[in-house]
Amino acid sequence: MKYYIGIDLGGTNIKAGIVDEVCRILAQSDCPTALPRPAEEVCDDMLKACTATLEQAKIGWDDITGIGIGCPGTVNSQSGIVEYSNNLAWHQFPMRDYLQSRTERPVRVGNDANVAALGEVCAGSAKGAQSAVILTLGTGVGSGVVLNSQIWSGHRYGAAEFGHMVIEQGGRLCTCGRRGCLEAYASATALIAFTKEAIGRCPESLMGKIAAENGKIDGRTAFEAMRRGDAAAGEVAETYINYLACGVANIINILQPEMISLGGGISKEGDALLEPLRKKAYAQAFGGCDAGVTRIEACTLGNQAGIIGAAMLFHQTSELAGR
Amino acid sequence: MKYYIGIDLGGTNIKAGIVDEVCRILAQSDCPTALPRPAEEVCDDMLKACTATLEQAKIGWDDITGIGIGCPGTVNSQSGIVEYSNNLAWHQFPMRDYLQSRTERPVRVGNDANVAALGEVCAGSAKGAQSAVILTLGTGVGSGVVLNSQIWSGHRYGAAEFGHMVIEQGGRLCTCGRRGCLEAYASATALIAFTKEAIGRCPESLMGKIAAENGKIDGRTAFEAMRRGDAAAGEVAETYINYLACGVANIINILQPEMISLGGGISKEGDALLEPLRKKAYAQAFGGCDAGVTRIEACTLGNQAGIIGAAMLFHQTSELAGR
Repeated sequence: MKYYIGIDLGGTNIKAGIVDEVCRILAQSDCPTALPRPAEEVCDDMLKACTATLEQAKIGWDDITGIGIGCPGTVNSQSGIVEYSNNLAWHQFPMRDYLQSRTERPVRVGNDANVAALGEVCAGSAKGAQSAVILTLGTGVGSGVVLNSQIWSGHRYGAAEFGHMVIEQGGRLCTCGRRGCLEAYASATALIAFTKEAIGRCPESLMGKIAAENGKIDGRTAFEAMRRGDAAAGEVAETYINYLACGVANIINILQPEMISLGGGISKEGDALLEPLRKKAYAQAFGGCDAGVTRIEACTLGNQAGIIGAAMLFHQTSELAGR
Repeated sequence: MKYYIGIDLGGTNIKAGIVDEVCRILAQSDCPTALPRPAEEVCDDMLKACTATLEQAKIGWDDITGIGIGCPGTVNSQSGIVEYSNNLAWHQFPMRDYLQSRTERPVRVGNDANVAALGEVCAGSAKGAQSAVILTLGTGVGSGVVLNSQIWSGHRYGAAEFGHMVIEQGGRLCTCGRRGCLEAYASATALIAFTKEAIGRCPESLMGKIAAENGKIDGRTAFEAMRRGDAAAGEVAETYINYLACGVANIINILQPEMISLGGGISKEGDALLEPLRKKAYAQAFGGCDAGVTRIEACTLGNQAGIIGAAMLFHQTSELAGR
């Protein structure tokens, strides 16, 4: 059995796990990223977390085939350099070489969203699929693309930004500066905005009551009110799903992956989201579509996708070889 | 030197060429597709065209390493079956086996737009690029995707329909039945519609005069009037380029290919199209973009892309191996 270390480096936490070749996490530990601080310090803490996790799993450094890291930003998987990370405020940091020189183990790095997508393909909702797009519906809309079982990271490591595909030219302002991006309609942030707008229009709606009970409006408010029979909430959910279906149908028309998996908090709505989404997306896809062409499901690995996918960077090689 | 036969099978004409391994066309011949008729009859005429072309090139069947065919519709490149072609009105025709049994040469088949894209990558505007998207701005918006030097045809051979990516939800009706597709804004048909609408609004515009001179409004009318200084025509061209740039920026954000090449009649406008397009598309791309990330150029092979790309199906194997 081969063992890998998978690290999910986030803006808040570093998560390190020991992963075996069949994608089981044998041990895991977390520590704060504690930004802002220099990349070297963060990497040193990553290594401490690795050592602690190895001890927990009773595995030595010598047993580790490789260390994979998913990192936010533009990550050059060929050179191992984190070219730019807005979240971490790093520029041109040679993460691979830094970690390799300190561990004497092979290191591979990738963009966090792509790495998490690889995790879902190796061990989660898209297991066994040759091609998949993972959309994470959170504060923004993140995405990762796996084709022929390999991450597709683009010519300069910036591909797979389905969240920044315009679906309504001139529409809502996106955080990227463009108008009408999928992220401005299909993120949790957008769903919250739709919910607030609907409460403004229909103050008597159950959504307002639920928001008052919970002390906030969140991505669950409209779906919860819809389940309890609120018509205005049903309209909010339908509007949201219409936009998401537009994006999903675009993905099918563009890449026709075997699988589209949805992650993030909203994906926990399950069939209330997935059933109308499938119906609407398949109806819009070019030339007809069903689950035999592209399956649409919720992600299953949650936060573990990043750790598993990082470890599984050692199972994909053509991303490097193909250049 | 290896020799291949490349066949571009269209709704109107069959084009067959003898292509060497460095993508030179040594001889070429055309014959009418003469639809509607059975697939077998069309294939028999394809073979006659091949024999005539071989004689012209003074090359024997035994010297042919393989025969590649680009065919409109859903073409299963693994099984060699034309699953469905609306243009040809064929269903489940085993083209590869039919031709292989009659020629005793290896045969490969692919979708015509994908095959033409491969041609541009092997020998045209995108030569040397590892990844490219080819958009053909004609009656519709066709597209082909090449990643890691291989055609990406999707899980069920229907990918690469960038023309049917919605950029304006609820917008203009597309021929596919959806509203707001790129094709409804960036095809020659759309440019002609914009031109007609502008002539309706500004009958005194030079566009009307040029249309009267030529006896028709076509994809050149607005660009020609713009070159002669007509302001309303400049607005038409700008509107058209704005939509196209939205689509091109989406392609960059989604796939970040090394190259985006534009084919079809409108691409002949050259810098009048390309310079503003680059400026607008790069400005919209996520995280900043320039030609070092994704070059944007016009296609160079014209009708020969299909013949060369079909022959070069023998230079790409992972599309099959990767499944």
